[in-house]
Amino acid sequence: MNANNQQTYNDDSIGRLMTTEYVAVKPYFTVEQALCHIRKYGRDSQTLNVIYVVDNQWKLIDDIRIKELILAEPQKTISQLTDNRFVALKATDDQEVAVKVFQDENRVALPVVEADGTLAGIVTVDDVMDVAEEENTEDFQKFGGSEGLDLSYTKTPIFQMVKKRAGWLIALFLSEMLTASAMGHFEAEISKAVMLALFVPLIISSGGNSGSQAASLIIRSLALEELRLRNWWFVMKKEIISGVLLGSILGIIGFLRIFVWQESGFYDYGTYWMWIGASVAVSLIFIVLWGTLAGSMIPIVLKRIGLDPATASAPFVATLVDVTGVIIYFTVSAVFLTGKLL
Amino acid sequence: MNANNQQTYNDDSIGRLMTTEYVAVKPYFTVEQALCHIRKYGRDSQTLNVIYVVDNQWKLIDDIRIKELILAEPQKTISQLTDNRFVALKATDDQEVAVKVFQDENRVALPVVEADGTLAGIVTVDDVMDVAEEENTEDFQKFGGSEGLDLSYTKTPIFQMVKKRAGWLIALFLSEMLTASAMGHFEAEISKAVMLALFVPLIISSGGNSGSQAASLIIRSLALEELRLRNWWFVMKKEIISGVLLGSILGIIGFLRIFVWQESGFYDYGTYWMWIGASVAVSLIFIVLWGTLAGSMIPIVLKRIGLDPATASAPFVATLVDVTGVIIYFTVSAVFLTGKLL
Repeated sequence: MNANNQQTYNDDSIGRLMTTEYVAVKPYFTVEQALCHIRKYGRDSQTLNVIYVVDNQWKLIDDIRIKELILAEPQKTISQLTDNRFVALKATDDQEVAVKVFQDENRVALPVVEADGTLAGIVTVDDVMDVAEEENTEDFQKFGGSEGLDLSYTKTPIFQMVKKRAGWLIALFLSEMLTASAMGHFEAEISKAVMLALFVPLIISSGGNSGSQAASLIIRSLALEELRLRNWWFVMKKEIISGVLLGSILGIIGFLRIFVWQESGFYDYGTYWMWIGASVAVSLIFIVLWGTLAGSMIPIVLKRIGLDPATASAPFVATLVDVTGVIIYFTVSAVFLTGKLL
Repeated sequence: MNANNQQTYNDDSIGRLMTTEYVAVKPYFTVEQALCHIRKYGRDSQTLNVIYVVDNQWKLIDDIRIKELILAEPQKTISQLTDNRFVALKATDDQEVAVKVFQDENRVALPVVEADGTLAGIVTVDDVMDVAEEENTEDFQKFGGSEGLDLSYTKTPIFQMVKKRAGWLIALFLSEMLTASAMGHFEAEISKAVMLALFVPLIISSGGNSGSQAASLIIRSLALEELRLRNWWFVMKKEIISGVLLGSILGIIGFLRIFVWQESGFYDYGTYWMWIGASVAVSLIFIVLWGTLAGSMIPIVLKRIGLDPATASAPFVATLVDVTGVIIYFTVSAVFLTGKLL
């Protein structure tokens, strides 16, 4: 076995994940000799489910499942069992690569090689499952709007947890301040028609919600590699259709809400109630469409520039859409209501 | 091998996941006989990494890793290798159980038994990884505020996807309408001090953001079973402290925003600007605290009543906190500003 110093590999590299406790045989061994060798050297091995075949320079030639070895005739040589087709991980690759390869290959262990092809160690499926779990946890926490915790929720000290959450919360708060500025811009309109302000949370949150939906679908698809960056136009088309449909549904409900309140006498929106309803409905279509587009495209852009797509968290998308939503809503209202209420 | 009809098991049960292609040996076999048996019957087996020991009624006695069999002396009997301690899955259990057990046990295959202890089949780690991946995807999509898709994003037809998203979006929209009603309740106050309305999106969204953070941390911890339902009080204490600290940070920033705008002459909040600042700051503390509590406790309550904690999606928590946030903000403002601006 190789005596590599695993500490020389990067923290998140496969080299740090691998074990050097494996059994390797030579191609000129017979099956019987190989089994004998395994009996002699296999005690400390992490797994005997897969045996590795190396040449005299310890270059990896193949891996053989123990199944093949047991089912083979004892007199055959190892080279008769090998087909020189194997999947190996690179020691310097990121551990995320290992997760993908294991998912594609359905193996319980995979060999790890150096740049020159020498066998450095093996990675077993249970270690890879742990890595996958950590990645999923980090994605989930990021999407919720905090930095990934280093320890579990229960073990993270309170001040460290507040620190991990405060950063994003402050950034979002500072960005959301733009809603106050944007609304301040329309203060004259609000003074003239206070009822317009009543619908602000309803309308802008719908954009955030549709954006959060789109972002979660896209982030997960990117993580699973079902979706590639080059498919961005496919996504965009799908989200434009979805956004218009979903926005129209909400727009109709929003208009009906105003209609019912007006007709039932529950609230009096005045002479121009229908124009207010139209402002709300049309704003909803634009804002929901904008939400789905922002939610779906930002993860793709983040990945494109080498950042984690999960950074496009639900609160992040919601904040972005809130600010633009205020502007869209009051602009649409100005178009419909100027000369009437405004 | 058993000839069970797998179709009789529930869709999400382990019985549907298992394969009946395994090799079983009897306890009175010698190691040599066992290996011989494996050579004869092992060709179709899904895995030979683990061999199963059954009695004459096909009751599971133990499982033996192939490693142990290879390393053992050929004359030993199987019963000398067994310790009758094994971990088996129940065929009727949910597939989620299998994921947990595999994570705890670090095995590449686990036996599946019927209620009476007879061996029904085996489950291999690659199938379990697929189940885990699907579960994670569903959780992620639900947390984003849509129903889990049955197919991948790229393969889901557009109308089916709109359907999966419209349900929650409409439910959230109808709930968020309460913000309009709540604000309508304070219309007289808004007319008197329009500037109060300008801060509504800023203040209520902070509650949603902190709630989304808390919810993602708790949902993931529950999924990983780091956190048990009985620990709810531990969570609540932690979130009360976090909520007050995070709310205070945002409250201070919010007050400073008003202070700086006022002093720089960028906006004139009038004589009572300090009281407006205080209303914003105190509201933020309460709303962020309420957000963290709602975000952390709702997943726990959902799990307690047998629902999926991930249903407490970021948009769901945000909507809930928006509605209450409006009420908190205007109530706090009324306390600080009545007799002054109101």
